[in-house]
Amino acid sequence: MISFETAFQKVLHFTLDWGEEKVSQLQANGRVLTEDIKADRDFPPFDRSTKDGIAINFSGIEKGLDIFKVEGILSAGMPQQSLSSDTHCFEIMTGAVLPNNADTVIMYEEIEIEAQLANISKRPKKGQNIHSKGSDEVKGAVLVEKGRIISPAIIGVLASVGKSAVRVKKLPTVCVVSTGNELVEISEQPLPHQIRKSNTFSLIAALKKVNIEPTQLHLADDRQLIENELQKALSNHDVLMLSGGVSKGKFDFIPDALEALGVEKIFHRIAQRPGKPFWFGITEKQKKVVFSFPGNPVSTFANYHVYFLPWLAKSLRIETTKQSVFLDETITPHPTLTLFLQVKTKFEKGCVIAKLIQGNGSGDLISLAKADGFIRIPAGETEFKKGSLFSFIPCT
Amino acid sequence: MISFETAFQKVLHFTLDWGEEKVSQLQANGRVLTEDIKADRDFPPFDRSTKDGIAINFSGIEKGLDIFKVEGILSAGMPQQSLSSDTHCFEIMTGAVLPNNADTVIMYEEIEIEAQLANISKRPKKGQNIHSKGSDEVKGAVLVEKGRIISPAIIGVLASVGKSAVRVKKLPTVCVVSTGNELVEISEQPLPHQIRKSNTFSLIAALKKVNIEPTQLHLADDRQLIENELQKALSNHDVLMLSGGVSKGKFDFIPDALEALGVEKIFHRIAQRPGKPFWFGITEKQKKVVFSFPGNPVSTFANYHVYFLPWLAKSLRIETTKQSVFLDETITPHPTLTLFLQVKTKFEKGCVIAKLIQGNGSGDLISLAKADGFIRIPAGETEFKKGSLFSFIPCT
Repeated sequence: MISFETAFQKVLHFTLDWGEEKVSQLQANGRVLTEDIKADRDFPPFDRSTKDGIAINFSGIEKGLDIFKVEGILSAGMPQQSLSSDTHCFEIMTGAVLPNNADTVIMYEEIEIEAQLANISKRPKKGQNIHSKGSDEVKGAVLVEKGRIISPAIIGVLASVGKSAVRVKKLPTVCVVSTGNELVEISEQPLPHQIRKSNTFSLIAALKKVNIEPTQLHLADDRQLIENELQKALSNHDVLMLSGGVSKGKFDFIPDALEALGVEKIFHRIAQRPGKPFWFGITEKQKKVVFSFPGNPVSTFANYHVYFLPWLAKSLRIETTKQSVFLDETITPHPTLTLFLQVKTKFEKGCVIAKLIQGNGSGDLISLAKADGFIRIPAGETEFKKGSLFSFIPCT
Repeated sequence: MISFETAFQKVLHFTLDWGEEKVSQLQANGRVLTEDIKADRDFPPFDRSTKDGIAINFSGIEKGLDIFKVEGILSAGMPQQSLSSDTHCFEIMTGAVLPNNADTVIMYEEIEIEAQLANISKRPKKGQNIHSKGSDEVKGAVLVEKGRIISPAIIGVLASVGKSAVRVKKLPTVCVVSTGNELVEISEQPLPHQIRKSNTFSLIAALKKVNIEPTQLHLADDRQLIENELQKALSNHDVLMLSGGVSKGKFDFIPDALEALGVEKIFHRIAQRPGKPFWFGITEKQKKVVFSFPGNPVSTFANYHVYFLPWLAKSLRIETTKQSVFLDETITPHPTLTLFLQVKTKFEKGCVIAKLIQGNGSGDLISLAKADGFIRIPAGETEFKKGSLFSFIPCT
């Protein structure tokens, strides 16, 4: 049995890289950029009015003019015009191109227009109300660095530079495998000794949140069948994510079957609760990784968030923020096991306070639905006073 | 011009209710439950072993026995068996049904089995290692209350009670409308006075994160065309979300066109920056809402998060957590405008610290891509010292 810290380091040691692919700009939402996004022109691409009003040449103001003759109206989307004289002005709308020979915009609120004459009530500052060409970014500048997760704001940047498709990190193909003769489908009425599948659905829903569409497989507790089916699953996927069949029970065939298929066991048991009998293995050659979680819902869900998500983030070279929270009660650690406790958090004056959810052990699916994450309690002998700080693992 | 506080209250006053619909369990991810999810049987549905080991009747221990004859092996998924005597035991696997006449499970680590005789090395406690029938929840108990957002953990609960379809709040149909003759498609090469559409793509990507698949519409700056197209859009959608065309410019036809179509203006301008010329209107009869944001990317993005998302949450009767963060620098408020400033946040010892992103005004799309939210700075005359606390509006 190894410690949580060792297990975590081992999992992060075996990250993979699935290369890159090109996806359309809207499908790129949430994916990881593998190319720098550069300005294809200056931003803004022209001197742009930021107000509705009139555009003048400031030399008119310097000459003491306060009335300007209106030459025409400029709206956004019109090609650039030229101001013929510093005694003239153009009416100009927000977003329109500043005309040649103009350098200052005065907003409607500060003028009156009558009979094509604009009368200025307040002396402007030279250059005001203009968003200058290239003042945000110059052509060729990197707007978004590769490695960033594509957010809705970045989708907007992609659009503005004409990237209707973009290169992103490929995601792993994942097969979610449930095991156990006691499991029946959702739509079935279970007999007294049976229960419906649930873990795999939670895993599938969680994987969809990181843009992975896994395939599903259910295996009965039959040693040969398990080996055959796992072999197929291994050859068709980058990651197997199993739930159940990894305890010390007589029908827990998964570890044996995986090892028979050439998956190298990295570790099996971790000094933690829940999630102790987590079997983790890899095939160095074919670059496959197997996360074989215990069958209990809380164990599977905790290990998915504690190990799989950081492993995925590191494989995709994403920097993740470490979160920590204050626990609002005193707690006694386990002498030898790292504990992952379900909590509900809330913001209180800029800080995050966690409250324990009272669960009923690792078989209790219901308490999970109330939690928004786990806190990690290091093993030890000394109690942690109310208000102690713990690492927080948010649930998806 | 009204204050941020008044505008926010007005927007939240006009929430809508789109009723409910039935969706499949996996499609329900992220949706809002409109039915209580009840236990269709006890949880767990039988006395369930939580360890691999042997099941005995404790009366044998009370009689001083430490060797039990193995009657058979019980695995998860097998119907319940009966222990024939308190001198006997069954081998039992995690998740298996406890046999009749047994009341205690001893794990393999604390026994030795030879020639079908299990030898106990450590005196057990009566009832240990059993997850009792109904101890998590009894049949009929509410497992997940209506009104909750369906998380992956709740997807697991739905599966376990046989809910392959579930009733959820209907989401509004949204039409995202861009306006402006200066806008061209992503795939086009803009002329010097043109720019590509970007706001609407950010909005579409953001809406997808709340499970809304909007339709798109682009309108040229033509008064009659705008009115005709908006009429169609209004009759086919619950929400219009526009970007651009709401300033005081001569080609800003949107407010007029909407009012001509019977949309009642609730407000037009707010004492805030960015996002001041935000036009908000409703049609009381047909229950439509129009969010008409300014054309600048930062203005649109801020107002989407500041107004639309809280409005959507309240319409769906979701409780949202208010977040607050510490700003790591001293800041001077605007004397009369509420400011929304782009920040990047990080966790530091249980608290959240925000750093300002230096943007270049409301036209700067690029700085948006670096922010993870906005902080709200109330209007006033007194500077806020470094370390002051501000409301935080996270970006999707």
